Amino acid sequence: MSGTRSVRPAPRVTLLTDFGTRDGYAAAMKGVIVSRCPHAIIDDLTHEIPAGDIRAGAFALATAGSFFPPGTVHVAVVDPGVGTARAGILVLAREQVFIGPDNGLLSLAAGTSFRAYRLDQSQYFREPVSATFHGRDVFASVAGHIAAGTLPARVGSAIDDLTTLALPSATYDDAQATGEVIHVDRFGDLVTNLRADRLPREALSVTVDLGGNDLGPLVPTYGAVATGRFAALIGSSGFLEIAVRDGSAAVLFGPLGARGAPVRVRWELAPGCRVDRGG
Amino acid sequence: MSGTRSVRPAPRVTLLTDFGTRDGYAAAMKGVIVSRCPHAIIDDLTHEIPAGDIRAGAFALATAGSFFPPGTVHVAVVDPGVGTARAGILVLAREQVFIGPDNGLLSLAAGTSFRAYRLDQSQYFREPVSATFHGRDVFASVAGHIAAGTLPARVGSAIDDLTTLALPSATYDDAQATGEVIHVDRFGDLVTNLRADRLPREALSVTVDLGGNDLGPLVPTYGAVATGRFAALIGSSGFLEIAVRDGSAAVLFGPLGARGAPVRVRWELAPGCRVDRGG
Amino acid sequence: MSGTRSVRPAPRVTLLTDFGTRDGYAAAMKGVIVSRCPHAIIDDLTHEIPAGDIRAGAFALATAGSFFPPGTVHVAVVDPGVGTARAGILVLAREQVFIGPDNGLLSLAAGTSFRAYRLDQSQYFREPVSATFHGRDVFASVAGHIAAGTLPARVGSAIDDLTTLALPSATYDDAQATGEVIHVDRFGDLVTNLRADRLPREALSVTVDLGGNDLGPLVPTYGAVATGRFAALIGSSGFLEIAVRDGSAAVLFGPLGARGAPVRVRWELAPGCRVDRGG
Repeated sequence: MSGTRSVRPAPRVTLLTDFGTRDGYAAAMKGVIVSRCPHAIIDDLTHEIPAGDIRAGAFALATAGSFFPPGTVHVAVVDPGVGTARAGILVLAREQVFIGPDNGLLSLAAGTSFRAYRLDQSQYFREPVSATFHGRDVFASVAGHIAAGTLPARVGSAIDDLTTLALPSATYDDAQATGEVIHVDRFGDLVTNLRADRLPREALSVTVDLGGNDLGPLVPTYGAVATGRFAALIGSSGFLEIAVRDGSAAVLFGPLGARGAPVRVRWELAPGCRVDRGG
Repeated sequence: MSGTRSVRPAPRVTLLTDFGTRDGYAAAMKGVIVSRCPHAIIDDLTHEIPAGDIRAGAFALATAGSFFPPGTVHVAVVDPGVGTARAGILVLAREQVFIGPDNGLLSLAAGTSFRAYRLDQSQYFREPVSATFHGRDVFASVAGHIAAGTLPARVGSAIDDLTTLALPSATYDDAQATGEVIHVDRFGDLVTNLRADRLPREALSVTVDLGGNDLGPLVPTYGAVATGRFAALIGSSGFLEIAVRDGSAAVLFGPLGARGAPVRVRWELAPGCRVDRGG
Repeated sequence: MSGTRSVRPAPRVTLLTDFGTRDGYAAAMKGVIVSRCPHAIIDDLTHEIPAGDIRAGAFALATAGSFFPPGTVHVAVVDPGVGTARAGILVLAREQVFIGPDNGLLSLAAGTSFRAYRLDQSQYFREPVSATFHGRDVFASVAGHIAAGTLPARVGSAIDDLTTLALPSATYDDAQATGEVIHVDRFGDLVTNLRADRLPREALSVTVDLGGNDLGPLVPTYGAVATGRFAALIGSSGFLEIAVRDGSAAVLFGPLGARGAPVRVRWELAPGCRVDRGG
């Protein structure tokens, strides 16, 4: 169908918040964006980030954002410090635009190669700016202007650093890797910070240890184990995950599988093999 | 980007319901709208209004609707009386279109200056009209026709009055104001019906009383108090709110903070000052 | 407004999943679709299908899908067998496109007149295809290509049969019909598999029996009974439903009204009348 269209695709703005939807806060943001850019298409990423959980928001934004095309404008609001000294920022990364509070929320999406601006040009805000809802009055308003064609550099002064998150680190040795559960998803799957590309692709045996329970070797997918059995596998974001087929690992493991729970992978390699640690 | 676009922005239709999304009812409404207006962009305001809670729906619709641009078509369905004698209506207010049942749901958005029509032209309905789902067969269908260019006056007979909500009133005296909690939001913030523009901007002291607990003076934002402490502040809709920083006032106050709970603000002014009651 | 638009309406893609929204999985699917078709408009049907509940997904998809116009591309993902031998498929039915796993999810929407293709052309996938997220890497990717103009037949080999669901059947006799509860909706209404067009339109009396409780004759709408009273009526999808006015039949009947609970309708006809069984 593209051959019959002579106009540019409509600008796209996504929203990620911890507002839920029942109060109309997320809806107000949509109204502000559309008021500034009537042809914008708004895609909800989610409004169900747990209230105030900056890390969960950063994780979801980085995960989902990477699949959007260049030019997408992402507005992210998990902002318990709204109205305090924390800045509002705009980040350019991977040819996409990320707008939100400078509290770490945008830092995972920004990665290590980005340009950033502090939102200090109030002519792009909705006035008067409320003390408690910058999502509407600052971030959505700036996003609408950006979608309508305003240059990112016009909305603020360049800055060099972002507030980052203190993320748990994983360690990778010759025969084992140690990390932790960093996210529990809606299916009760436990997502760890152990990266697939740091684990051995060919090994005589791999075992995963969670809270003292040996989960056996990695399997390719949920269906490789029987219903109700746990499985350790490489998830869709490239990290080790622990799941229960047709069930919930979060329920099965309880506090042993909560965010922050330690996870260890051990393996035996065939003689002469080494783990590729280039990832 | 707007300079490269020669066509009018696509018509926008918003949806606000108490349907949730898991049953496909809201989805069916989208299909009906798109069938009648293939280039409409549909923005969800919310489908999470508590089932049958007309007042919560009216509050969210009025709050969010005010941020949308002229020409937006809003469809709102919180309709416990569907299939009875209550009319379906279309309201023009603030150059926007509101479509839904005449049970008070549209009345806050309509305000005091509006034109209204009773939806009595069945050629704009989806036939046969079910007895239990006017959201799909009447409201979404009419909205699709309106978005596609049908004039509002063609879909119904003009009417003068809307069903309104019996809203709690607030009283404002020289030294105090008395109102009540009208909404508890997803963060557990208690939104009252005390309007910021009726409270003193400059006062020697302001104290807020909720259920016998003195909450101290108004603060500018959540961050002005310590974690876990309550705060009384002016919320983003211009009403007094009671919140707990990084916590939930709804949990902290329990039934003392439920919808309908009385709230009192007292203040002392400097000699010679008066509260501006023009608001 | 349509007269001022010279371009074709944007292609529309809908999403139905059991992902919820808080993890960013549904959001990633949106990104993949938009990356392949930047002018697509994405409408969420729902992301709140109960995890792994293929039948609930199939029911919602068939119900909502029927209201969308020809050309709509529906992506449906309730896929507990992801990564196993179950195929990915594309189904053409009612001039719409349905994309998802071949596990019964698409079978109700497909009905009895359809064409189907097995998704076996990996050049339309997002590579590498993860073992656990075909929704993103296969289904959303193919949907984006279809929305952008790729012919359905190019994405896979034609197949004759779909996996279907073992649905409970209803029996219709001269004086009674017997079926069961097939869905409990968000309002607590109990939707049965007894079709309105198989029940007598004119009868001296109709009584509905649920778990031994006689619910009395059919009523036209919820408002026909007093608040808190149950009602048996024909729902908006054309099936018999059991509801409680301003309440929840699911709560009132408890396990007696759960999915699978038997429901019986008995009637007396005027002498000489027969039930129309043509439906």
